[in-house]
Amino acid sequence: LTSESGATLDAMWARGRAVDIASDEAWLRAMVKVEVALAAASAKVGLIPETDARRIESVSRDLTLDTAAIAREASATGTPIMALVERLRIAVGPEVAGSVHQGATSQDIVDTASMLVAVGAIAAIVEDLAGASEAAAGLGARHRATAIAGRTLLQQAVPTTFGLKAANWMLGLDRATDRLAEIRRTGLAVQLGGAAGTLAGYGGHGQRIAAEMAGRLGLSDPVVPWHTERTRIGDLASALGVAAGAVAKPARDIVLLAQTEVAEVEEGVADRGGSSAMAHKHNPVAAIAAVACTQRSIGLVTTLLASMAQEHERAAGNWQAEWVPLRQLLITVDSAVTWLRDSLEHLIVRPEAMARNLGSEGSPDVGDAPALVDEALRAHRARPSP
Amino acid sequence: LTSESGATLDAMWARGRAVDIASDEAWLRAMVKVEVALAAASAKVGLIPETDARRIESVSRDLTLDTAAIAREASATGTPIMALVERLRIAVGPEVAGSVHQGATSQDIVDTASMLVAVGAIAAIVEDLAGASEAAAGLGARHRATAIAGRTLLQQAVPTTFGLKAANWMLGLDRATDRLAEIRRTGLAVQLGGAAGTLAGYGGHGQRIAAEMAGRLGLSDPVVPWHTERTRIGDLASALGVAAGAVAKPARDIVLLAQTEVAEVEEGVADRGGSSAMAHKHNPVAAIAAVACTQRSIGLVTTLLASMAQEHERAAGNWQAEWVPLRQLLITVDSAVTWLRDSLEHLIVRPEAMARNLGSEGSPDVGDAPALVDEALRAHRARPSP
Amino acid sequence: LTSESGATLDAMWARGRAVDIASDEAWLRAMVKVEVALAAASAKVGLIPETDARRIESVSRDLTLDTAAIAREASATGTPIMALVERLRIAVGPEVAGSVHQGATSQDIVDTASMLVAVGAIAAIVEDLAGASEAAAGLGARHRATAIAGRTLLQQAVPTTFGLKAANWMLGLDRATDRLAEIRRTGLAVQLGGAAGTLAGYGGHGQRIAAEMAGRLGLSDPVVPWHTERTRIGDLASALGVAAGAVAKPARDIVLLAQTEVAEVEEGVADRGGSSAMAHKHNPVAAIAAVACTQRSIGLVTTLLASMAQEHERAAGNWQAEWVPLRQLLITVDSAVTWLRDSLEHLIVRPEAMARNLGSEGSPDVGDAPALVDEALRAHRARPSP
Amino acid sequence: LTSESGATLDAMWARGRAVDIASDEAWLRAMVKVEVALAAASAKVGLIPETDARRIESVSRDLTLDTAAIAREASATGTPIMALVERLRIAVGPEVAGSVHQGATSQDIVDTASMLVAVGAIAAIVEDLAGASEAAAGLGARHRATAIAGRTLLQQAVPTTFGLKAANWMLGLDRATDRLAEIRRTGLAVQLGGAAGTLAGYGGHGQRIAAEMAGRLGLSDPVVPWHTERTRIGDLASALGVAAGAVAKPARDIVLLAQTEVAEVEEGVADRGGSSAMAHKHNPVAAIAAVACTQRSIGLVTTLLASMAQEHERAAGNWQAEWVPLRQLLITVDSAVTWLRDSLEHLIVRPEAMARNLGSEGSPDVGDAPALVDEALRAHRARPSP
Repeated sequence: LTSESGATLDAMWARGRAVDIASDEAWLRAMVKVEVALAAASAKVGLIPETDARRIESVSRDLTLDTAAIAREASATGTPIMALVERLRIAVGPEVAGSVHQGATSQDIVDTASMLVAVGAIAAIVEDLAGASEAAAGLGARHRATAIAGRTLLQQAVPTTFGLKAANWMLGLDRATDRLAEIRRTGLAVQLGGAAGTLAGYGGHGQRIAAEMAGRLGLSDPVVPWHTERTRIGDLASALGVAAGAVAKPARDIVLLAQTEVAEVEEGVADRGGSSAMAHKHNPVAAIAAVACTQRSIGLVTTLLASMAQEHERAAGNWQAEWVPLRQLLITVDSAVTWLRDSLEHLIVRPEAMARNLGSEGSPDVGDAPALVDEALRAHRARPSP
Repeated sequence: LTSESGATLDAMWARGRAVDIASDEAWLRAMVKVEVALAAASAKVGLIPETDARRIESVSRDLTLDTAAIAREASATGTPIMALVERLRIAVGPEVAGSVHQGATSQDIVDTASMLVAVGAIAAIVEDLAGASEAAAGLGARHRATAIAGRTLLQQAVPTTFGLKAANWMLGLDRATDRLAEIRRTGLAVQLGGAAGTLAGYGGHGQRIAAEMAGRLGLSDPVVPWHTERTRIGDLASALGVAAGAVAKPARDIVLLAQTEVAEVEEGVADRGGSSAMAHKHNPVAAIAAVACTQRSIGLVTTLLASMAQEHERAAGNWQAEWVPLRQLLITVDSAVTWLRDSLEHLIVRPEAMARNLGSEGSPDVGDAPALVDEALRAHRARPSP
Repeated sequence: LTSESGATLDAMWARGRAVDIASDEAWLRAMVKVEVALAAASAKVGLIPETDARRIESVSRDLTLDTAAIAREASATGTPIMALVERLRIAVGPEVAGSVHQGATSQDIVDTASMLVAVGAIAAIVEDLAGASEAAAGLGARHRATAIAGRTLLQQAVPTTFGLKAANWMLGLDRATDRLAEIRRTGLAVQLGGAAGTLAGYGGHGQRIAAEMAGRLGLSDPVVPWHTERTRIGDLASALGVAAGAVAKPARDIVLLAQTEVAEVEEGVADRGGSSAMAHKHNPVAAIAAVACTQRSIGLVTTLLASMAQEHERAAGNWQAEWVPLRQLLITVDSAVTWLRDSLEHLIVRPEAMARNLGSEGSPDVGDAPALVDEALRAHRARPSP
Repeated sequence: LTSESGATLDAMWARGRAVDIASDEAWLRAMVKVEVALAAASAKVGLIPETDARRIESVSRDLTLDTAAIAREASATGTPIMALVERLRIAVGPEVAGSVHQGATSQDIVDTASMLVAVGAIAAIVEDLAGASEAAAGLGARHRATAIAGRTLLQQAVPTTFGLKAANWMLGLDRATDRLAEIRRTGLAVQLGGAAGTLAGYGGHGQRIAAEMAGRLGLSDPVVPWHTERTRIGDLASALGVAAGAVAKPARDIVLLAQTEVAEVEEGVADRGGSSAMAHKHNPVAAIAAVACTQRSIGLVTTLLASMAQEHERAAGNWQAEWVPLRQLLITVDSAVTWLRDSLEHLIVRPEAMARNLGSEGSPDVGDAPALVDEALRAHRARPSP
């Protein structure tokens, strides 16, 4: 048995654009982008020649990176930056080499690159969340008065409407979206501090360079370097954890509504969810995959929050522990959102089954459910675009 | 051996006002307060007589609650509300009994009461965080230029200043404070939905009653009932988790700086931290207690995030799983903050030890550290009052 | 509103004997018991007079402990031991005072007391697990051939028997039981090391004293002091976490089987699970409470595993972080087990509903399910008594 | 910028053989191996022709698997098995195709393959743990009487010996090793149940086939199928979590001992741990990497324990959530162990620095420390080979 490489089964549940946006290679590319921005900003304040900065930028565009070799070297030294910087210095030539990575420390580049990756991944997540929310809003509007059994503790209680259920899904997704959008706008900052966070290598120009880099990279300008002040990472991780929770809720509801004995909804994707052995089965594959992805996110958030206590000017382990979980969390949450959006966009709703399960004759009393749906949709539409 | 009851060793690490604000009894009192507000709001829209609402309010003021008996009954029925409502109905007398708890479901009362408790506890946490941050700001200002070894991976790197270290502590605490203050302002909403979240028992007045309750109780008015839409709980839990991380960072730094071999800071509280056996020891008790409290918070946030997937109109286990961890988290984080504030306010700083460890002669190059401290303090002071 | 103290709403979901066995007071009593055992063992090797040991034992029997005051003092000093030892020394009188706590450090007493508490709580948990397993075994035997829809991904697949489902519940409970019983037999050791774990205060008799204490207290004799070697705590915490998982599985199945639309089982406890508003409802309260308790256990295990990295000879925070979560975990898991046992012992099974949901006529093909039940029951009965 | 694929930066902290043993490709190969064993066992009981089994085995040996395509198909159907079985059926030809995967369900193959992967990875982890423990034992023996400051709460307390510290590291590693070895011997079982776990597709031969497969694959024979009885996974995950804790303890101690101001140990690997900017720095890279890896393991264990509640006969999300975390945990823990072993095997110990920090003249009283080391080494050597 031999197998051809190039893809991984890890990707099995991975959906959405964050898979590529937060890949190892994308992260490496982001690090190069940060070095380019640092050089440009350093030139702007006169710390290095403009020609050097332009040379670094042009060379970086054609730079071929052997991620395997870089990973090997990184594994030996404990940082991917040295291997990257060395390649960049060789590529620009000996006259310009000194202008590469000037005054920076590894964490400046790694953290800023992580923020760039996060910006991109959050954009995808926010867009997918918005799509999922839109699908839920559509279900809410169409079924604002469709009676369904209200179920508490998984027992039928008094009636509600399917639309109100969907409107609640929508509102949870909206709240998660808004928080992530806010973090993208204000919480992701450039990192520049040098060896001990004092900007000692920049001759007093450090803060201007950081501000310039922030502008070029579309990140916030932090007040001071934040090497071991990790509330930004904590905020990001927990907003992603809350988004996972906002996805898990409708996903689990759909799985329950799709049960054979309930059969009030069905995922209407042809050729999916079938069973080779059992033709009658129709598994809500997308909702189940969303549940699986959200379940994975719990532990990733735990690790990121548990790693916030970072020692002195750079942590001995807790910083390094962030790298993989942060990118996995971005990928896993986007996967969850993408699966849920798929499920919601293809959801077949069975009002007749809802009525049958309810055992109601005539019009059951659904209280203010339709009015509450209207209220929820108004709030949904009144939100500023994320 | 006999022991007298009334206090618990659990309280050993518990500090701060949240211990009382989020106690079981306070939660019970909050539930009564919610019933009173519900009655008042119901009277306002004409659903029950004004005299009934006034009777409920006046009776509730003198109501004696036997928490032990209520806990026993609650344990049998799975909800503390029935026991409470029954006592309230008996207290107001048979004519008014029907106006108590009208149209509400247990979760309406429990959730709203939890939000009231959270409002109070967050107020305490925010105030204590502000105090800790102020102490860090003072250290930052006083030591803006006090040279200290920058330490990366726990190895001495290039110099920085103790003031910049303290300024970073301050900024982390400020970010955590601002997020919690924001959640208190907008994220804690009244809950009112009735049996299945449709406000069916309120004759079309449900939303007005909820709005009126929100005003009376100082909570937000949610768009619709949020019985199983738990992003509010997720937001609250994770903001508390991030606050714990913002506390853990300085607490751990202080423990490291106080090491015998480093001895750059000391907690200056007489009669604390000594060892009966070893007179020369001076343990940084407050910082260590802060670490212990933050360590506990990790798991509590995990449980709360993992419990966000709540089924249909009321969850079968995940809602009930929130109660204890949420209040413990409020208490534990306030304890952590209070211990840290204590540590910071009593911190004795040893510039001469910092210089000695640095092994520097003359003036070490601390880069822009003093200017960065000034910048951080400007940002600190420019914030709107939380 | 006033409330009488003495009980807490935290106790609401708390069931089983571990509530008392692992209470704060029980822990305090266990600490006194450890001091008595230390004195007796010290007398045995001739380190203190026999009469002193006897005096300490007799005095400790009548010692009244004001837990409130001890908690207050403990909170100031960061350890409950000093306050306890001081009281014990006063009680035995000045001549004997020097023989109290001789050579020991706080952690010796706290850890050994925790192990004593754990031994007792595990005994209760093991007994309750055995009871729950026995109830599941009974269901397995009675329904070895009762056809029920096999459900995969919550969709009906091919048939199985309810007995096989129950047999799987039983096997999971048995595996969790056996592991906890093994830990109780071999994994819970006495702690004695003195200030830095070298037994320096015992004149070369330390190991014999530890062995003697182990014998008297029914604990294992560790090879060496284990102040910061916390695999015993990790093993205990994770065995409890696995037990919670073994409980969560049947509890969740029962909640699903009891759904209104499925109605294949019901918890047959009169006057419980009813709804004041909805007489037709019959909530599976015990299974739901079990789910809630297991959900809480997740985070507690996380904190305990995350706290295993304890510095040098005594940790600065991670040890102190263990105390409350360890006892809460013992209580929560016993509560979960007790609720599940209650649910299983009162479970009403509806074979006719199972057949109806299956939609089968005649005898559905349940494969080897009955034979597998027999096999499982054989394995269950062949186990040595835990 | 372009990058060549084939390796990932995720691998940066990944060390040890589990990286390959638990890779996606290895998992795929293990699934093929399980199909071969199933065919052979089915032939043995006469369910399929012997020639079919032999054909399946010989074809599988040369089977080329395009993991990328399989991952794509798996992502669409929610299981990697269908894509794999289809390829295998095509490869063996139409006459034999029916004998492939006969009577099995996807989870039978995936779970059994996971157990095979776990067996291999645990073998590597156990061997690396044994190596790390041996290195710690060597340090213990060499420094049984080397005085060092005992440190409690990171403050110097009374003296101990470096050997006793190392002996404690060794004992923790040994306990973790023994538990993992026990799980490998008895806790990893073959999975065979068919669509609903009743062995319905095997004409009464199912249990014999499972037993035969267990023998061929070196796994345990479970009493009955364990599709949703996940205590085996819980046991495995938590034993790995405890192993991570046993690694984190010495790793953190080494980082602390290597601090500039303490300087009692150093990692003696040339060309590693240096800083491009600061030649005097010597970072304990291996210990720091071990800390980072153990930190990541916490969240993975959390997810696996939180996923144990699996519904009915196959879970809707929680089973699927196990796949990636389980393999990542195996890899991460082996990486942690390998880094620690590296650190311990290259550790340079500075007795003179220990004496200097201790500030002791003559022979400090180290109590029974040397005797305790001897005792620990005796216990270490008396263990049966893992």
